[in-house]
Amino acid sequence: MTKLTAFQSEWLPKIEQQLKQDLGVASRDSDFSEMMSYAVLNGGKRLRPMLTLAVVASFGQKITPSILKVATAVEWVHAYSLVHDDLPAMDNDLFRRGKPSVHARYGEAEAILVGDALLTGAFHVVSSANSTDTENENIAAKELLLLSQMLSYHAGAFGMVIGQVEDMKNHRQEAKIDVNWLLNDVYAPKTAALLGFSAIAGSRLSHVNSNSVADNSEIAISTTNSALLTFGTDFGMAFQIQDDLDDLDQDDVEKITSLPHLIGITAASEKRDKYLTHARQLLTDLATRDLTFDRTLLDDFLNVIGDDI
Amino acid sequence: MTKLTAFQSEWLPKIEQQLKQDLGVASRDSDFSEMMSYAVLNGGKRLRPMLTLAVVASFGQKITPSILKVATAVEWVHAYSLVHDDLPAMDNDLFRRGKPSVHARYGEAEAILVGDALLTGAFHVVSSANSTDTENENIAAKELLLLSQMLSYHAGAFGMVIGQVEDMKNHRQEAKIDVNWLLNDVYAPKTAALLGFSAIAGSRLSHVNSNSVADNSEIAISTTNSALLTFGTDFGMAFQIQDDLDDLDQDDVEKITSLPHLIGITAASEKRDKYLTHARQLLTDLATRDLTFDRTLLDDFLNVIGDDI
Repeated sequence: MTKLTAFQSEWLPKIEQQLKQDLGVASRDSDFSEMMSYAVLNGGKRLRPMLTLAVVASFGQKITPSILKVATAVEWVHAYSLVHDDLPAMDNDLFRRGKPSVHARYGEAEAILVGDALLTGAFHVVSSANSTDTENENIAAKELLLLSQMLSYHAGAFGMVIGQVEDMKNHRQEAKIDVNWLLNDVYAPKTAALLGFSAIAGSRLSHVNSNSVADNSEIAISTTNSALLTFGTDFGMAFQIQDDLDDLDQDDVEKITSLPHLIGITAASEKRDKYLTHARQLLTDLATRDLTFDRTLLDDFLNVIGDDI
Repeated sequence: MTKLTAFQSEWLPKIEQQLKQDLGVASRDSDFSEMMSYAVLNGGKRLRPMLTLAVVASFGQKITPSILKVATAVEWVHAYSLVHDDLPAMDNDLFRRGKPSVHARYGEAEAILVGDALLTGAFHVVSSANSTDTENENIAAKELLLLSQMLSYHAGAFGMVIGQVEDMKNHRQEAKIDVNWLLNDVYAPKTAALLGFSAIAGSRLSHVNSNSVADNSEIAISTTNSALLTFGTDFGMAFQIQDDLDDLDQDDVEKITSLPHLIGITAASEKRDKYLTHARQLLTDLATRDLTFDRTLLDDFLNVIGDDI
């Protein structure tokens, strides 16, 4: 059992519990709350909130109820993006994780609205994160406001949404597809941006009131935050390329050009490993600078790329 | 010229300027920023941000650059809702204000994504409202966080989104349509919730650091905030009923049941006037309690219901 497996065993049920609890009261209409829950509570591995929590744990910080709650916001965003991506006008997928997609089950208008409600709700989760706090361990309002700002940046038209815009061009075979476009204009915003957010959120939440960075100056913290953002982004890029390698068969059906199609399996695997190597180097630098930082968990994240995480 | 006309002449260009400026840099892709701008910069009267600013002015408070910016966030939400409402799977409208709707002009997938980006961007506007401040008149982070929370509440599955869910049932003639359902489950969340938010946002922003309430205790401020929320909601209900009265002819084509269909023109007009009377009473109470409060502007909002505001 790796450290990550143990960590997941402990925190996955708590993440699920938080999501379930918030989704249960997410709408004034219980039928609609159920639709929202259907979209989110689908047996996912919760990679994004898990990354946030893992970063907090790596800095030896306590995962408070408020931190747990704010970490789950990104999962609402991720879930809404899948609901909208599956729509007939987008990828037109009738199934998601072996079950009917939201529009297949509830209708197209409902799926658009469920997605809208989840996206809106994500910002409620962030802004109300302290509401779960019972031990007076509130996150500073200034910090939550900044996380809200970063979430909208990474999820919106500088991040995930614009990645999907470009990906649609790929689906329609409208784009001039080359390696740089695929990596920088599709994979980076569509997949890596939210994982980058998840990692930097963990770093920020670790350092709001902490003395964990050996040299606890603002510059040191800012360097650490940036390193985690890049770590999450590298992880996201490697994760996406691995996903492409795993899905090679399906792509022929979907007529989408992924990195392995473009440069071959070997070169794509090398690209993936380059991101992983860079991410490991970031952890090495961080461990050198900050003696309280334990790299084991985050190393495990990198090691299981390609496993069913 | 009413006080409101003068106020609109002064502030409409400033609201437009703020929207234009933020939308111009809303995406890393300039084509997509243009699509987002197309959805928002359509000659609207900016009723919602105007209401926020009017409330601030009614309390004799200065409209700072930060307040102007935060007031415009609701317009991003309003614009996204129109883009998604116009989609083929929803109201299937090819035109909006005499111009092609976003999906008619740019395609359905793009319209979904433009809406998503606008909704996400609204929360960026709130969380970065202080960025426009050059005179050290920041809004407290705690206050912006609360406004972000209230915006998500009023825009999401307790407000606007759930109103649209119910409205779809009306479009499809699936609902058991009666007066209570129409008023409480459709009009209140779909139209009145955002206007309620706009009004209470103005009240909150007036009282963050102010001494304007005669009895400046927390209870007095909280009473004032609630009164403005109800004022905005009443205004929204009256506004929606008036809209129904104005659109009576079109409804036959769209097969939607509105209040005048259900109870007749006279009874619907009486309902509208009941909301207006209630709203006026709130202003009277407020003016009695708070001598710094000038009701003229907000009275004008009520008086022009039915005019082209």
